[in-house]
Amino acid sequence: MKKKKEEKLEYSSPACTARLTSLDDALYVIGGKWKLKIIIALHDGAKRFNELQRTVLGISARVLSNELKDLEMNGFVKRKVQPDIPVTVTYEVTEYSHTLQNVLDALSEWGIKHRAKIRKERSVSTKPAKK
Amino acid sequence: MKKKKEEKLEYSSPACTARLTSLDDALYVIGGKWKLKIIIALHDGAKRFNELQRTVLGISARVLSNELKDLEMNGFVKRKVQPDIPVTVTYEVTEYSHTLQNVLDALSEWGIKHRAKIRKERSVSTKPAKK
Repeated sequence: MKKKKEEKLEYSSPACTARLTSLDDALYVIGGKWKLKIIIALHDGAKRFNELQRTVLGISARVLSNELKDLEMNGFVKRKVQPDIPVTVTYEVTEYSHTLQNVLDALSEWGIKHRAKIRKERSVSTKPAKK
Repeated sequence: MKKKKEEKLEYSSPACTARLTSLDDALYVIGGKWKLKIIIALHDGAKRFNELQRTVLGISARVLSNELKDLEMNGFVKRKVQPDIPVTVTYEVTEYSHTLQNVLDALSEWGIKHRAKIRKERSVSTKPAKK
């Protein structure tokens, strides 16, 4: 058993393992195709469900509904019921979602630079490289 | 048609749209469950396929193989064939993958903080909140 553990350590330094763990933790909560996009859209201001669906292009109502529930449960989004007639429901970001600022900034900045690089490489196309 | 465009702008400011676009660009290339994890594992040093699979816990050989092809195509990873006997193949990160440093740092830092928050909230469990 001891030998096996040593063998494993060879392939991955403790620093690398710690980094992978913290990345895992982050991606576990905010990974996937939509969560960060929804948060960015709501940073722009509280929105009703339909407004949000129109901002986050390509998301279906069913997926948006599920993602909002997850985001609410994890403390990123607040659902607010306005006692107007008819009752309106809006979604807004919480204070905690602002802890993601550095992540969003880093991703956006990198996206801009990557697009510039791809544009330079293929001066014709404007779409980033295939996933 | 013009009316429709104006209506859309109402829901999403130009700054928000630009941010969503650059985030889209980033997630298009480095989104998904595995790519950043593979890059972090290789930042730790060049690895053979099996070493890499042991470091990135939970990835299947088929998925790892596909992800490596994508990462190679997008210029993040280099495949190196060593002319030893038997021939060994290793994977390493490219210079370009280091442009992701800020993204990886921001995600790791956030993951650490989020885990601390969750731990504080549920002093028993050590797993971050459900996705």
